[in-house]
Amino acid sequence: MDASERFTELGQQLRVDSVRAAAAAGSGHPTSSMSAADLMAVLMDGGYLAWNVDDLKDPANDHLIFSKGHASPLYYSMLKAAGIIDDAELLTFRKFGSRLEGHPTPKIPPTDVATGSLGQGLPIAVGVALAGRRLDRLPYRVWCLCGDSEMAEGSIWEAFEHAAFNGLDNLTAIIDVNRLGQTRETMVGWDLDRYKARAEAFGWHAITVDGHDVNAVKAAYDEALATSGRPTVIIARTKKGKGVKAVEDQPGKHGKPLDDPEAAIAELGGERDISVRLRRPDDAKPHVFDTSGGKLPSWDVGEKVATRQAYGEALAALGSMRGDVVALDGEVSNSTHSELFREAHEDRYFEMFIAEQQMIAAAVGMQVRGWVPFASTFAAFFARAYDFVRMAAISRADLRLSGSHAGVSIGEDGPSQMALEDLASFRAIHGSTVLAPSDANQTAQLVAAMADREGISFLRTLRGKTTVRTPADEQVRIGGSRVVREGSAVAIIACGVTVDEAVEAAETLAGEGIEARVVDAYSIKPIDVETIRAAARECGRILTVEDHWAEGGLGDAVLEALAETEQSTPVHKLAVRRMPGSGSPAELLHEAGIDADSIAAAVRR
Amino acid sequence: MDASERFTELGQQLRVDSVRAAAAAGSGHPTSSMSAADLMAVLMDGGYLAWNVDDLKDPANDHLIFSKGHASPLYYSMLKAAGIIDDAELLTFRKFGSRLEGHPTPKIPPTDVATGSLGQGLPIAVGVALAGRRLDRLPYRVWCLCGDSEMAEGSIWEAFEHAAFNGLDNLTAIIDVNRLGQTRETMVGWDLDRYKARAEAFGWHAITVDGHDVNAVKAAYDEALATSGRPTVIIARTKKGKGVKAVEDQPGKHGKPLDDPEAAIAELGGERDISVRLRRPDDAKPHVFDTSGGKLPSWDVGEKVATRQAYGEALAALGSMRGDVVALDGEVSNSTHSELFREAHEDRYFEMFIAEQQMIAAAVGMQVRGWVPFASTFAAFFARAYDFVRMAAISRADLRLSGSHAGVSIGEDGPSQMALEDLASFRAIHGSTVLAPSDANQTAQLVAAMADREGISFLRTLRGKTTVRTPADEQVRIGGSRVVREGSAVAIIACGVTVDEAVEAAETLAGEGIEARVVDAYSIKPIDVETIRAAARECGRILTVEDHWAEGGLGDAVLEALAETEQSTPVHKLAVRRMPGSGSPAELLHEAGIDADSIAAAVRR
Repeated sequence: MDASERFTELGQQLRVDSVRAAAAAGSGHPTSSMSAADLMAVLMDGGYLAWNVDDLKDPANDHLIFSKGHASPLYYSMLKAAGIIDDAELLTFRKFGSRLEGHPTPKIPPTDVATGSLGQGLPIAVGVALAGRRLDRLPYRVWCLCGDSEMAEGSIWEAFEHAAFNGLDNLTAIIDVNRLGQTRETMVGWDLDRYKARAEAFGWHAITVDGHDVNAVKAAYDEALATSGRPTVIIARTKKGKGVKAVEDQPGKHGKPLDDPEAAIAELGGERDISVRLRRPDDAKPHVFDTSGGKLPSWDVGEKVATRQAYGEALAALGSMRGDVVALDGEVSNSTHSELFREAHEDRYFEMFIAEQQMIAAAVGMQVRGWVPFASTFAAFFARAYDFVRMAAISRADLRLSGSHAGVSIGEDGPSQMALEDLASFRAIHGSTVLAPSDANQTAQLVAAMADREGISFLRTLRGKTTVRTPADEQVRIGGSRVVREGSAVAIIACGVTVDEAVEAAETLAGEGIEARVVDAYSIKPIDVETIRAAARECGRILTVEDHWAEGGLGDAVLEALAETEQSTPVHKLAVRRMPGSGSPAELLHEAGIDADSIAAAVRR
Repeated sequence: MDASERFTELGQQLRVDSVRAAAAAGSGHPTSSMSAADLMAVLMDGGYLAWNVDDLKDPANDHLIFSKGHASPLYYSMLKAAGIIDDAELLTFRKFGSRLEGHPTPKIPPTDVATGSLGQGLPIAVGVALAGRRLDRLPYRVWCLCGDSEMAEGSIWEAFEHAAFNGLDNLTAIIDVNRLGQTRETMVGWDLDRYKARAEAFGWHAITVDGHDVNAVKAAYDEALATSGRPTVIIARTKKGKGVKAVEDQPGKHGKPLDDPEAAIAELGGERDISVRLRRPDDAKPHVFDTSGGKLPSWDVGEKVATRQAYGEALAALGSMRGDVVALDGEVSNSTHSELFREAHEDRYFEMFIAEQQMIAAAVGMQVRGWVPFASTFAAFFARAYDFVRMAAISRADLRLSGSHAGVSIGEDGPSQMALEDLASFRAIHGSTVLAPSDANQTAQLVAAMADREGISFLRTLRGKTTVRTPADEQVRIGGSRVVREGSAVAIIACGVTVDEAVEAAETLAGEGIEARVVDAYSIKPIDVETIRAAARECGRILTVEDHWAEGGLGDAVLEALAETEQSTPVHKLAVRRMPGSGSPAELLHEAGIDADSIAAAVRR
């Protein structure tokens, strides 16, 4: 067999195996797999995809991301052809306990990330390619298979812009233009030139090709390899369900097994047993950044410092202590204070501009390669990337996010800039850590702890200055809390900006003979169950105070900590309940009923 | 004065007033206002913007959306020039209680929507333009001022694609290319041709212009008006802080008042008092769709029906009963069953393809004009548009969202397709309503109730069939619940798919002499506090069961309902606590510990 015959045969095998896998599962997306089979056959057998199959964690390995994650039958068929899984495992597709889930996840190596929410694979691929170029400094390539339906996701165009801006010629996107979405034709159909014009306008080298002409596909990959200074996109005209007349280019054939898989397999020329020996990458070691040591910053008790300032200083210091820490920001680095990291470690800072989805995706891509990314923007604007955070949890990604300007206490900018749902939305991310420190010393220690934390960690920082109450040598830990003030008449549990308010209220109440305990619950998830239960036991009544909507934040975390106890402890939640406007921080905290006066009044009631 | 002198003078007035407003506030974005002042002066005084200032709700009015909401000083200065506010109110900018917030909101008419989270105004403008073309069928135009920094948001390109696909020549975008973001130059800088190529590749008519040459700007607006069949974008080269040397085109001048406002006002030629008589639109009435009457569908008790199917049938029926109901879907209408609405009312159905941000934004735009949009996709994929939903609440928008395929009970597709944080994230939206019906009759009644509901309503529907338990003539209401089974040993509170499981568990337990009450809490927010408190009082122990992460969903809503009571009621939450994979619905419900066996076992413990 010559090369083109081999490609064609491998493409048919990938189709047959896709049909078999979906038939065994009774569900799945064989037709979306069949359209891209020839593209992937040439990628594997043409020597383009470089994987050390004996060491799937080899840092020199290429990366292959199926942005169209529903083409998982094709992906798993590729793993079989490469000898990474066997045929028996292929047929466990979508079954309970199988590593081969409905959409790929890192459960099955060498899969880097979970896909299945469209439009995320390419932005993540940009992150891996950025890591390859600027962090690892290794010649691995990143290949990303996109569906044409997902080109309608804005996040794809964030990725296009960032890849070109960063000159990522180590990235190749392959768009499987099979024209048919789930229910109808896409907006662009088979107008490949329209995709080409868009890609070129965003700064990419673009190639249009017949995705079933294996020689043309090979030439396109060669052209991609030969292109320097910018990424390449191969825009391939394909047919959904290619090779089986009953489904080929037919509407209504999305996301279901073929009606007659046996006939389809026969039509595709039957089962084959082609093994592909993937090109093995040259041995190479990732770059290591020099460190200069040093220690975390600290502040004296009584100083007034914004926790966002402490975040920036701590992150910059951590960057000097650890070479694996990197920072990303959504073009607000002088607000979040990640600019302090940029100034200290410019080669490990990534400006992501106003593109929060791409920012999270880039961070996911970097942690794929073992880097320790911290991404920052206004806490409210992480909402823009919530689906990316959700998927990052499924990717088992380790991410550290810092959101500044939380709550009504930001003041005049108004509600569009106020995070009031951040604690709730991040608490609901699987395996997440949610932190809301009240002072600079807490913040610095938590930043360091986040670097070692698995999963998604979110740190909420404040625009305004708060009083340092935590001594620099006191241990602050994820899952911890501080009793700021002893008392047993009532326990006021606060976090962030409301700690200062709670202390002020407690002092006022003390003058009235009411000794309130104040707990600073800087760790919202996990929350310090023991301290909260002790407060309930010893004080009998709890008041929670948060600069956040009433749902899903500190108050709910406290309720959860007490849920299963037999003891009766009424919990009253103070939280933001009306839509705020503009005003001074003090005016808005008062209007929301979460300032010292409101707390004292609530206790008296 | 000739027209061009008048434009120039008005532009200077808008600058002066922007400087004055920010100076009075002590914060704000005057330099971002000054760059676009000439563009807006010509829009107003050139007779392009048509507003009936005597009736700001006139359906014939044009719409002006400041996608760059931080240019609010410019916007409010325009309102003053148009006679909508006076100078005294202008100077209340950003003050507590003022209608003139840091970023525009509908508090100040005729503002349609809140902006301030970048990249949202243009997609919303697409929605208003779609309403103008396909629903109202009125000749009003939609003008949208965009910043250049926000062109990095993917949502902008979703808007570009949809506007062109729908041939929205009633929409004009104006990009204020002042080149400078918050901390640095944008990725594109002043390369106007690059923006032009992108816009053209997305199907728009694009004009580049010097944004301070008022005659050229006027010619560009004329060209926009003369362009049919596609939207026009005016890409204007401007200088941030134009007109004041101390800030003009200078970095580091973002988002702060000028250091010396008096000198700046003098440099701009001093205060002026130009009043603009805006062009008044011709009288016109919006189109009204015929209705055919009919009633909501209903099902017999005992039938097995998927609630997503009930959603589609109910929505189609509602569309026959009410002409103001419209539907949008993210290219999964055969999964959400909004296809039933499309088939019945094609002229009120909007296919939004795989672009969830644009889908929500379009719905927001349509409700601006009084339409009653229902938008649907997989519940998990609303996470993609979470920031749009957050902002929609600030816009005081009335939106109805239906998310299908919730929870592990979807089975084989795996976690990327499973909504497990939807209840939590929607509960944390201000003023929201969160519904999780367990059967078809509940669903149909709730769909009708949502149409009349203010704020953001979210309905969670299920992929699989559930048993109809609610009689068709039983009232189902927002804030309600159902006691499915009486008992007093323990109360099992469930919603959606777990109601069937809870009933099965209760029947098993009854055989063991344990009479469990089962409450179907189909309304999660507001939750039926009375029924839950009664269950606590009468049963003494509560078990909540939800196909959702443990944080922020049904369990937390129940805890909140009990929080302030004096009574001690231990609440045990059954919820999904480990990352699911693929498998059958039954296998995954069992693994998550939320099936009938798990419920019964938990009660026994």
